[in-house]
Amino acid sequence: MRIEILCTGDEILTGKTINTNYGHIAQRLLDVGLEPHWGTVVGDDRGALLTAFRQAAQRARAVIVNGGLGPTVDDLSQEIAAEAAGVTLVLHEPWLARMESFYAARSRPMPPNNRKQAMLPEGAEFLDNPIGTACGFAVTIDGARFFFTPGVPREMRRMLDEQVIPRLLAMGGAPGVPRLKRFHSFGIGESRADELLKGIEAMAPPEAGVKLGFQAHYPQLETKIALRARDAETAERIMAPLAEEVRRRLGNFIMAEDNATLETVVIDALRARGGRLAVAETFTAGGIAGRIAHLPGAEAVFRRGVVARDTGQLADGCRLMGVSADTPLTPALAAELAATLRADCAATHALVVLIDLDPGLGEDRSKGGAILIGIADDAGTVAREARLLGGRDWVRLGAQELALDCLRRRLLGLPTDERVDFERR
Amino acid sequence: MRIEILCTGDEILTGKTINTNYGHIAQRLLDVGLEPHWGTVVGDDRGALLTAFRQAAQRARAVIVNGGLGPTVDDLSQEIAAEAAGVTLVLHEPWLARMESFYAARSRPMPPNNRKQAMLPEGAEFLDNPIGTACGFAVTIDGARFFFTPGVPREMRRMLDEQVIPRLLAMGGAPGVPRLKRFHSFGIGESRADELLKGIEAMAPPEAGVKLGFQAHYPQLETKIALRARDAETAERIMAPLAEEVRRRLGNFIMAEDNATLETVVIDALRARGGRLAVAETFTAGGIAGRIAHLPGAEAVFRRGVVARDTGQLADGCRLMGVSADTPLTPALAAELAATLRADCAATHALVVLIDLDPGLGEDRSKGGAILIGIADDAGTVAREARLLGGRDWVRLGAQELALDCLRRRLLGLPTDERVDFERR
Repeated sequence: MRIEILCTGDEILTGKTINTNYGHIAQRLLDVGLEPHWGTVVGDDRGALLTAFRQAAQRARAVIVNGGLGPTVDDLSQEIAAEAAGVTLVLHEPWLARMESFYAARSRPMPPNNRKQAMLPEGAEFLDNPIGTACGFAVTIDGARFFFTPGVPREMRRMLDEQVIPRLLAMGGAPGVPRLKRFHSFGIGESRADELLKGIEAMAPPEAGVKLGFQAHYPQLETKIALRARDAETAERIMAPLAEEVRRRLGNFIMAEDNATLETVVIDALRARGGRLAVAETFTAGGIAGRIAHLPGAEAVFRRGVVARDTGQLADGCRLMGVSADTPLTPALAAELAATLRADCAATHALVVLIDLDPGLGEDRSKGGAILIGIADDAGTVAREARLLGGRDWVRLGAQELALDCLRRRLLGLPTDERVDFERR
Repeated sequence: MRIEILCTGDEILTGKTINTNYGHIAQRLLDVGLEPHWGTVVGDDRGALLTAFRQAAQRARAVIVNGGLGPTVDDLSQEIAAEAAGVTLVLHEPWLARMESFYAARSRPMPPNNRKQAMLPEGAEFLDNPIGTACGFAVTIDGARFFFTPGVPREMRRMLDEQVIPRLLAMGGAPGVPRLKRFHSFGIGESRADELLKGIEAMAPPEAGVKLGFQAHYPQLETKIALRARDAETAERIMAPLAEEVRRRLGNFIMAEDNATLETVVIDALRARGGRLAVAETFTAGGIAGRIAHLPGAEAVFRRGVVARDTGQLADGCRLMGVSADTPLTPALAAELAATLRADCAATHALVVLIDLDPGLGEDRSKGGAILIGIADDAGTVAREARLLGGRDWVRLGAQELALDCLRRRLLGLPTDERVDFERR
């Protein structure tokens, strides 16, 4: 089924606001086994909107329109939808009542403008928005089904999942229940993951339409399995062995699944044992502390972070004497710093990341830096050394990830020295 | 002149890669006084590409096509461009020679696939790519001028500025030189800035077509003035008094201009006086250190950062005794911590940011946190207190900005206590 995503609004058209809604809608379609066929962006302009609706109706069987449902004069979606569908706008009484009670609950009068948000094309199918004043709706224009969604991302996301996708799936003749499983890994590149997971799709019955997908956001890789079945229980039963097989093949490189993240896995592992973490870092520059320390729950486990560019300053912050800017950076030094920092902060775990940047870093891709990681806990210390090549940001982000992943591995009793694909000798 | 931006590629269509090129192209057009009228996204699909080219030719006078110029079989732009223009592909000998020398300089043989990148539609105008193997080209399809650019962002950006925009300006009948001036501010919301800058456009002769624009990326606001004149000197002469007027009206809230940033302004001000910075932070969680310490030049000025969620731990890291998790957070405490940290690190400047989060932060917009900032330097200490309302990220990012901006103000001898629009009592 051909599906078009049509994003409206001057702010999107002019690039003033980055169009994150487009990518979210497209990815969610793929997650449930559908596929976007075309994307269109137009501004808050009557002529352009009408042309866009008519052209989309020719190209696609279903069109997801995003934006233009607000209360102001430049919000034109309902009006142009009615024009394109050849109907008038009529008041949707229940939605007006909902908006009035929405405002009443906040002890504010509803601005008269908002009434506009309850005017829908005659005969339109109402799409609920439980968290905002812009309701959605569906109408048929020139034989194509149009789904109108609000521009506010969290409202759009919920309406997409709860209202639009089930209708699209029903239209596609596959009204089954979609199931999506996600794995977040570090250390395996997309092409190797693709290689490692060869044949996974064929492990399930063809009618489940299993689809394997990847999304690389350096340094992490997200691996997704999407499938569909007649009910949730069947979908889960088909998914379970596939997920188990992905875990087996990607092994310790999987850091987290679904909505969990490397950060939440580390925090949870520390909390589970009453742990307290200290971090010392150089060129990652607070980036490691900054991924953990502000999160909910971190107040109980994050003890202290020390940041310095000069090794002497870092050592001073960790209370290790006799180290200066000229002291060679070694894994042993990282481990020794970790042990001292751990003792000084009364932490249970200390993570130290030293980075020895190549002179002239950033000039070409043959340069990079050595990453030296030390971890101290009640079982002693462990050190890890790796070399990453690339620009400043590439090395810095890779080092953050490598260090946090080492800590995860140490906390979970996994080997900390498995080579990652980004490493170069 | 109607301009369409046409982005191609399965990764963009499916949302696998976020389409940052679209926004960049759109914004650069606005910067030079042009405007995008339509955006289209299609995958690496012959039928869709051909339809997209033909439809764009009907809607626009100029079309910027992005992507599909690579060496692989799914890179179809040249081929479909030729088909749409009704011509054949011919070898562009000079580009083939350039690619061969490009590979020779890297001591690698040119893969045979790359020859494809030198095949251009017959009669196409060549657009140089000095930093990659995908050359651009321009052809006319159904009366509209199409500019084909590579998908690699830095290659596209350079070709857009050097090759495409000058041609678009010439087509638009305004072959003058564009001039763009940018101001980065913190503390003034977009609507207030708009109000404060009323009448700026009218200060210049109408033929300069001065356009004032804003781009808000919380917590910063970017204010842009774009104009055009017959030569660079005239453009600069028209811009100078406008820029001066913007500086006068936005005053101390302007943190940086053009390619400078708050971070580089702070680093430069520290370097200019041989300064060395120490930072201690709580809920900003390394975010302040993380904006400064990794930058080029920071190795000379960034001394040490301390991060903790617990006030006692933070004070211990700053070597201030007698402070515990229960000590009330006050501006005086922030100042005292700054003085102690400065002495301990032998820094010239110390910045301390304490944050007192409301219980239940993140549940609704009426909650937030108190930000307590202390700065110590050789002239003594200064403290600043502010209250921000919003979710966790809003408060955290706002506190980072407020703190770094306070430091900038202190370094430049400006008042540190001007109220910002985000503050709430």
